[in-house]
Amino acid sequence: MWTHRHLTGIDELSAADITHVLDCTETTFKISREPIKKSVSLRGKTIINLFLEASTRTRSSFELAGKRLSADVVNVSPSTSSISKGETLLDTVRNLEAMGADAIVLRHPASGAAQFVAERIRASVVNAGDGTHEHPTQALLDAFTIRKHKGRIEGLVVALCGDILHSRVARSNALLLGKLGAEVRLCGPGTMLPMFPEVLGDTVRLCRRMDEAVLGADVVMMLRIQNERLGGSLLASTREYSRAFGLNAGVLEGAKPDAIVMHPGPINRGVELDPALADGPRSVILDQVEAGVAVRMAVLELVIGSHANAPGAAVPR
Amino acid sequence: MWTHRHLTGIDELSAADITHVLDCTETTFKISREPIKKSVSLRGKTIINLFLEASTRTRSSFELAGKRLSADVVNVSPSTSSISKGETLLDTVRNLEAMGADAIVLRHPASGAAQFVAERIRASVVNAGDGTHEHPTQALLDAFTIRKHKGRIEGLVVALCGDILHSRVARSNALLLGKLGAEVRLCGPGTMLPMFPEVLGDTVRLCRRMDEAVLGADVVMMLRIQNERLGGSLLASTREYSRAFGLNAGVLEGAKPDAIVMHPGPINRGVELDPALADGPRSVILDQVEAGVAVRMAVLELVIGSHANAPGAAVPR
Amino acid sequence: MWTHRHLTGIDELSAADITHVLDCTETTFKISREPIKKSVSLRGKTIINLFLEASTRTRSSFELAGKRLSADVVNVSPSTSSISKGETLLDTVRNLEAMGADAIVLRHPASGAAQFVAERIRASVVNAGDGTHEHPTQALLDAFTIRKHKGRIEGLVVALCGDILHSRVARSNALLLGKLGAEVRLCGPGTMLPMFPEVLGDTVRLCRRMDEAVLGADVVMMLRIQNERLGGSLLASTREYSRAFGLNAGVLEGAKPDAIVMHPGPINRGVELDPALADGPRSVILDQVEAGVAVRMAVLELVIGSHANAPGAAVPR
Repeated sequence: MWTHRHLTGIDELSAADITHVLDCTETTFKISREPIKKSVSLRGKTIINLFLEASTRTRSSFELAGKRLSADVVNVSPSTSSISKGETLLDTVRNLEAMGADAIVLRHPASGAAQFVAERIRASVVNAGDGTHEHPTQALLDAFTIRKHKGRIEGLVVALCGDILHSRVARSNALLLGKLGAEVRLCGPGTMLPMFPEVLGDTVRLCRRMDEAVLGADVVMMLRIQNERLGGSLLASTREYSRAFGLNAGVLEGAKPDAIVMHPGPINRGVELDPALADGPRSVILDQVEAGVAVRMAVLELVIGSHANAPGAAVPR
Repeated sequence: MWTHRHLTGIDELSAADITHVLDCTETTFKISREPIKKSVSLRGKTIINLFLEASTRTRSSFELAGKRLSADVVNVSPSTSSISKGETLLDTVRNLEAMGADAIVLRHPASGAAQFVAERIRASVVNAGDGTHEHPTQALLDAFTIRKHKGRIEGLVVALCGDILHSRVARSNALLLGKLGAEVRLCGPGTMLPMFPEVLGDTVRLCRRMDEAVLGADVVMMLRIQNERLGGSLLASTREYSRAFGLNAGVLEGAKPDAIVMHPGPINRGVELDPALADGPRSVILDQVEAGVAVRMAVLELVIGSHANAPGAAVPR
Repeated sequence: MWTHRHLTGIDELSAADITHVLDCTETTFKISREPIKKSVSLRGKTIINLFLEASTRTRSSFELAGKRLSADVVNVSPSTSSISKGETLLDTVRNLEAMGADAIVLRHPASGAAQFVAERIRASVVNAGDGTHEHPTQALLDAFTIRKHKGRIEGLVVALCGDILHSRVARSNALLLGKLGAEVRLCGPGTMLPMFPEVLGDTVRLCRRMDEAVLGADVVMMLRIQNERLGGSLLASTREYSRAFGLNAGVLEGAKPDAIVMHPGPINRGVELDPALADGPRSVILDQVEAGVAVRMAVLELVIGSHANAPGAAVPR
């Protein structure tokens, strides 16, 4: 049974927990493909999207997830937030909780923000990305997509390529894939690789070259490279980065013949990923997006559903 | 029967199509006047308002239209869009489609943007204004308003006055009115008139003077003049523009005694339109606004309803 | 029976009106604590939040209130508003009304804006803060909170402390508390006290010192001090302000032993209020927030419900 009131990171989930989310997502995924994409499971519940970093896709995905479950969904963004008036994060979320929020979906630039809040309120906190720490629903939707295409996760070889060090997506994915028994390879420039990869799991290995990372891989997941990370002359370094760490058909030849190509988006076309691959038959990038809404529906149902198991917890305070 | 999956412009519609939308709007208009303004026709459908240009009235109008039909509606604006992170328009809309969007309502500064997108995705695209090209729902709500007041469109004389050249509203209106058999007169400064008016229809005529345009007209539709189009000293040229091309009671005397005054808003009071006329008995400006929600309800029902006729098209990809 | 179509200020309400809102709030408050926080009382009604000043908590509170009553709620903010294109406030609200708004919740920087609009449209106007004039739902939620904790309002001693002169919260609270028979003490620096406190009620008294204001009080309500009001060197004057007009445990000793501490938020921790008090057992600050949604539900039901009593008023125009 699911007992987590919050989802702040993959780190806190067991392999069984992860599999449970993926199994629940099979149901919500079916809802998303019905002509009438609607369930009443969260009718009368309140979900607040508190996004203190700009985002379209994640916010829209959570918003749709909540609405398809008939919850009341309210968006709060940095420009409209009282945080701009000097209010502390904790006061902001306690206020939202006092308004009856059953779940607060939090994106925040500081690593650890979701955990910090989760320890202090009774509303469910769902981490939608905190600094360079975790982005657990992204890893779950990636796992769901991999499982859909490969039938399993255990024993697969997955290459994560790009700016691993600063990527909460890479971190959550490495943790999840390790827990489910995949072999994880992390590849990127030396300055973008973690110093202590072993904290991400026993099966994690660093690669300095793309051909090495991709060799025999079942899944190649490219990360968005943030231009501001590429020092010096932007154009020159973009071209160099692309040549050394970009994915194109030639590099992909080293992978398994049925390897799939993933990307959390938004894509820098021609930088980390060749447009021909992004739009090609092996790309499952839009499947990831579709899975995103379904995974978030499942997560929201699970964390809010957990309140019923905790006596006295239905009322926020 | 309605077969259009998208509404990108009036140009693609036949006279019968246009009449069909107006007839369907009679029904949605009634809903808008009920004490309970609600239908369940789009329950479980997803509508995304992707507005890459600022707008209150059009976005609010589409948002209300979707909500009154019980659809799940999500707004995406330029500041929150991944387009600000360098994502292409096509990637953005494909992502929204993968999230299960049944319709994407697109406002975009580039002419042709809606058509470009519509040719590449299966979700319905509704053009909410693309550059200086078209704004089809505006022309449809104007036609609905004219028909409500005059009982017909065929044979009417309609004067469109202002910056015709840069106005997507004027373009869509001229096309629609021509198709339904109205006589269309376009009036404005020489630099603001189209060089090839014949592309807008057989019955379109250019006028250089307001008295000429208004003479015997059934409808006088004033366009918003954008201050940034008035070169040189702003105040002087505003006053001059107003004197030559503004509408006031004196100029309106040349029109039919029962002529109505229209404006797509927002009004520059005292520039293109005398406040006394804007608020006077012949103004139908707020009727246009009311018709807007009803027209958009009808359009959303029609384009999303068309999916059921296309086999395999219910699921976005 | 409730007959007010608008709620523009406490000034226009009788003691019986106020008590009626508080009594109705008992019902909506219960809804907010149900596992399914939902009523269908405003299904098919349209509520527009027109916030021309930034705000999280008030906008979110109204948005949730409308959604929990099943209304269609649309947010319009300054950046997306046509007011940025030079449209007048009246044209903006008339447009929203023509779109079928049953209620327009208006926050505006100019004192009197809500009243100005209310006199000119038939949709209900709910003042969510207008300049330094009134913020009636804040005073109502404060009164509801006081009544919950003290069982009554009549005969209580309430100290309002801070920048009274510029605070619409203080003004609405002083008016309401006076009407219900509380003794109101206003305390702050001389430059922040009203010159003619008698307009706020017979029982209002000015205090120049906190110990005097707090002495024997049942309720101590601290106001947010806006940094921009503190002239000269910010840090020095913040410290001085805090020393003279901040609330801490020592100052609070002068109040009744069961006195409660209130604050409309967002709190400047350590300036006007000691964090230990804000989070302590006598603080009812989060109760105020919870009451806010319930009060706004009651107000929206009452003002929209009043339309049914006015013949011909169901249709906006």
